[in-house]
Amino acid sequence: MGKKVLIVGGVAGGASTAARLRRMDEDAEIIIFERGEYISFANCGLPYYIGGTITERRMLLVQTPERMKSMFNIDVRTQNEVIKIKREEKRIVVKDLKSGKIYEENYDVLVLSPGAEPIKPDIKGIDAKNIFTLRNMNNVDAIKEYIENNSPKRAAVVGAGYIGLEMVENLYNLGMEVSIIEKSNQVLNTIDYDMAAIVHEYLISKKIPLYLGDGVKEFNHSENETEILLESGRKLKADIVIIAIGVRPDIAFIKDSGIELGSRGGIKVDSYLRTSDPDIYAVGDAIEVEDFITKDAAIIPLAGPANKQGRIAADNIVGKKVKYKGTQGTAIAKIFDLTVGCTGNNEKVLEAKGIKHLSTVTITNSHAGYYPGALPMTVKLIYSPEGDIYGCQIVGFKGVDKRIDVVAASIRFNKKVFDLTELELAYAPPYSSAKDPVNMAGYVASNVLEGNMDVAHWYDIEQADLDKTIILDVTEPYERSFGFIQGSVNIPLGEIRERFEELPRDKEIIISCQVGLRAYIASKILKQKGFKNVRVLTGGFRHYRTVMKSKNTLPIWYS
Amino acid sequence: MGKKVLIVGGVAGGASTAARLRRMDEDAEIIIFERGEYISFANCGLPYYIGGTITERRMLLVQTPERMKSMFNIDVRTQNEVIKIKREEKRIVVKDLKSGKIYEENYDVLVLSPGAEPIKPDIKGIDAKNIFTLRNMNNVDAIKEYIENNSPKRAAVVGAGYIGLEMVENLYNLGMEVSIIEKSNQVLNTIDYDMAAIVHEYLISKKIPLYLGDGVKEFNHSENETEILLESGRKLKADIVIIAIGVRPDIAFIKDSGIELGSRGGIKVDSYLRTSDPDIYAVGDAIEVEDFITKDAAIIPLAGPANKQGRIAADNIVGKKVKYKGTQGTAIAKIFDLTVGCTGNNEKVLEAKGIKHLSTVTITNSHAGYYPGALPMTVKLIYSPEGDIYGCQIVGFKGVDKRIDVVAASIRFNKKVFDLTELELAYAPPYSSAKDPVNMAGYVASNVLEGNMDVAHWYDIEQADLDKTIILDVTEPYERSFGFIQGSVNIPLGEIRERFEELPRDKEIIISCQVGLRAYIASKILKQKGFKNVRVLTGGFRHYRTVMKSKNTLPIWYS
Repeated sequence: MGKKVLIVGGVAGGASTAARLRRMDEDAEIIIFERGEYISFANCGLPYYIGGTITERRMLLVQTPERMKSMFNIDVRTQNEVIKIKREEKRIVVKDLKSGKIYEENYDVLVLSPGAEPIKPDIKGIDAKNIFTLRNMNNVDAIKEYIENNSPKRAAVVGAGYIGLEMVENLYNLGMEVSIIEKSNQVLNTIDYDMAAIVHEYLISKKIPLYLGDGVKEFNHSENETEILLESGRKLKADIVIIAIGVRPDIAFIKDSGIELGSRGGIKVDSYLRTSDPDIYAVGDAIEVEDFITKDAAIIPLAGPANKQGRIAADNIVGKKVKYKGTQGTAIAKIFDLTVGCTGNNEKVLEAKGIKHLSTVTITNSHAGYYPGALPMTVKLIYSPEGDIYGCQIVGFKGVDKRIDVVAASIRFNKKVFDLTELELAYAPPYSSAKDPVNMAGYVASNVLEGNMDVAHWYDIEQADLDKTIILDVTEPYERSFGFIQGSVNIPLGEIRERFEELPRDKEIIISCQVGLRAYIASKILKQKGFKNVRVLTGGFRHYRTVMKSKNTLPIWYS
Repeated sequence: MGKKVLIVGGVAGGASTAARLRRMDEDAEIIIFERGEYISFANCGLPYYIGGTITERRMLLVQTPERMKSMFNIDVRTQNEVIKIKREEKRIVVKDLKSGKIYEENYDVLVLSPGAEPIKPDIKGIDAKNIFTLRNMNNVDAIKEYIENNSPKRAAVVGAGYIGLEMVENLYNLGMEVSIIEKSNQVLNTIDYDMAAIVHEYLISKKIPLYLGDGVKEFNHSENETEILLESGRKLKADIVIIAIGVRPDIAFIKDSGIELGSRGGIKVDSYLRTSDPDIYAVGDAIEVEDFITKDAAIIPLAGPANKQGRIAADNIVGKKVKYKGTQGTAIAKIFDLTVGCTGNNEKVLEAKGIKHLSTVTITNSHAGYYPGALPMTVKLIYSPEGDIYGCQIVGFKGVDKRIDVVAASIRFNKKVFDLTELELAYAPPYSSAKDPVNMAGYVASNVLEGNMDVAHWYDIEQADLDKTIILDVTEPYERSFGFIQGSVNIPLGEIRERFEELPRDKEIIISCQVGLRAYIASKILKQKGFKNVRVLTGGFRHYRTVMKSKNTLPIWYS
């Protein structure tokens, strides 16, 4: 008889641990304890089942206890809740939720994969039957049932993170009017404001009310509807409310166990995913990982890392020495037709930590512009003065997932922005351009770091003193009829070589064009003509206009 | 006045050199000599204009001499052919094709970017007016005009490389019956036979006749049609023929210049893209590059590398020291709905060079299976016994471009198959799975190299002696009604633990399932039960069946 391994939690991390462990050790006794009714369900798919994109409930049930038994010879005990860990005796206390019976089980190795639970703040009226959080099959069933029985017309989603926005899309697709309430001044806190502004513009174009920088004070229920009173005093009405303001490690059951927690409140593990007790491993959303960029402790609840951690924990249990090397927070969301991807740290995080960084924005086509269907994407690359890639955010309609993955790989391999220029990526007109958007982002960042270009950002324009700064627009006059920066001077690129003497040499010049390419060429001309203080508006007028539109419309928008 | 830089050729490499050079040096005198009428046209887009996907001819003209002048102050001389280089005098001899006038121009630096010309073999009847090659706007105009005036019904494409297959798709989309004639026994020689078999199966499903392993002996023209006599003696008829059997450096004009050529017949350059003459650089399809994997000299005509080389040459001309680090041959093709991507070396190349390598095949969904629209892709990863990634080939309907780019980046960064398992790629159900196909390919290869799994290939099954080898099929009995390997023994995975004693211990066992996952689990069980000689059929029955279908149907197929 082999080792006896008990696993607490049968979803992503726990199920991965169990499957890999069995492959590596046919003799181990493996028992999974899962509080819920289901193991290994598709929790990332839940919003899409609610919205009807995923039509069959059974599609969400990726793995069953029966198959775990037949394929892996694993004893899966659903509706069995681990309520206590007796470390000294190497035993756990389990409650069978069906019978109410409490029993104990001993272990050689224990693996904790309890996951995270949605935060549900203590707000008046939050426990009403039309207010939901979303974590598991029970929640989904309850939401589906409520919608079927009550046909809600108006929905409010509190929290504009990934799950929140996925719920917005799915409730909208069911025909509801959906409002978004978010405490921060932007959606998707994993990206920066200027990139979130693209999402804001898009949501506004879909006539989805946005209440940013505002929280819920109380829910007041009448017979037919719920009135949501916001902290600002504003009120809105809804028939159904989804609370998606975040999650926290679901670890009440380890409270008295003596297992150490980290500074952020998650289970502390070493790089082998071992807790402070060498016989206990922990994986998934409940643990603190090392932020791959800053090396600080962080809680980053994501399915990809949880699955990888499960596999690594299993390898370590069978005596391999495999390290988990940190989480970089690569994430992606579909928001209707829009895709938002990010990896690494954003500028807000870096600023809060006092880490010096630069950023540039490029807007490039998803594939060759002459092949039909090319759509622009906005790429923000964030890097150290030495060129180390700190993070990347991409928003667009097509090909975003590909580029964020290439940058994510580059970050994982500790590469610099210069290295992005050397990537030989697959090019044919339906897929990319001869210089891929990732190459282009690398070129622009390299130009900055090599001293070929100084950049200005949208806020530099916003804050510019026009007595000291000339904003030079090098687009063609006809382009200005579609909009331009107020106060800018227009000299088309083609005329710069003849007309540069019109520009004052004692002022700073910030050059803008649509996306930044022509401005860069103009800046090279002016610098070589002896102008000292020349910057290029990164992302060009297009990015600036989007940010300004967001700033001028929000925090509160409704039609 | 700055340096005088002459550039021969105004398409990908030449135009890139010129644009970057101007940005870096406002004072240089830059002249581009282009034999054709156009510069910087979208040569990768030409098939799609013929097929009507790109509707406007002007879309192909990415850059014009006028814009090169106004944006970059570059003197572009189209229809000016450089016919001779006088290196000792640092002069070139140019023929103005419009006036017929011959003149000379001196240079400080010369850049050669003449590109490659289609190979048109000396075959009887090949110069007829309905037989075309495809390189430039003139060819495209001629093909378009021929099609419009003659409404050909039957087309033959000779050569099944990227351009050949793109032409097949585009002529097919115009309503023609298209036949493919290819000297090799497979399409797309940059990938291996087993992967090309997926393309064969697909083309056959579209009822496109394939004449593989056969070449054209002669074209016999009658008034209304062309009869193509193949080397095998077979005959087929066509109204229009496209010859796309490959390209070679278009460098007749440097013949007497003393500029050194390499072993493969391309212009020899050092890592700074300088020819044997230090004042002459060369870039693009006419040069020999270093194969990034083997470090051997190679001619790899691709647009991405040409553009990057142009930029690097410009940087070196202005005194930076930038190295071109070789070409890995990342390429991609859309073949109707199918995408074929590859990067690095294939097994044929590695075998020919005597480089020891391993390969594994994984078949994984483009995104989470429970989210609608997921489609399988076949990933072949090729690597050294130490895990260095030598190459990757992917064929599928969705998400192929993303995965080939991630692997291409990993190769460029000299990473190993183990590193692919650590990639934290963007996951949400519409985009990927928690373990991305690239992770999965890495896991499988790692399992092989770490001794967790031994693999068999399709040809091991083909060659198996059933007296010495058991082929164990671990799928469910109902799955066998859709096909199975002849002679295989069926024990479903769920019964292996009870029934393994039925298997002989003195024979080799090759285990198969649909794609390889269950077979792997079964192999782990059998090995831990003491079976010594157990292998897993990589890619499973699905890959095996596709290869066999190709082998049994081809080399010649027509309906």
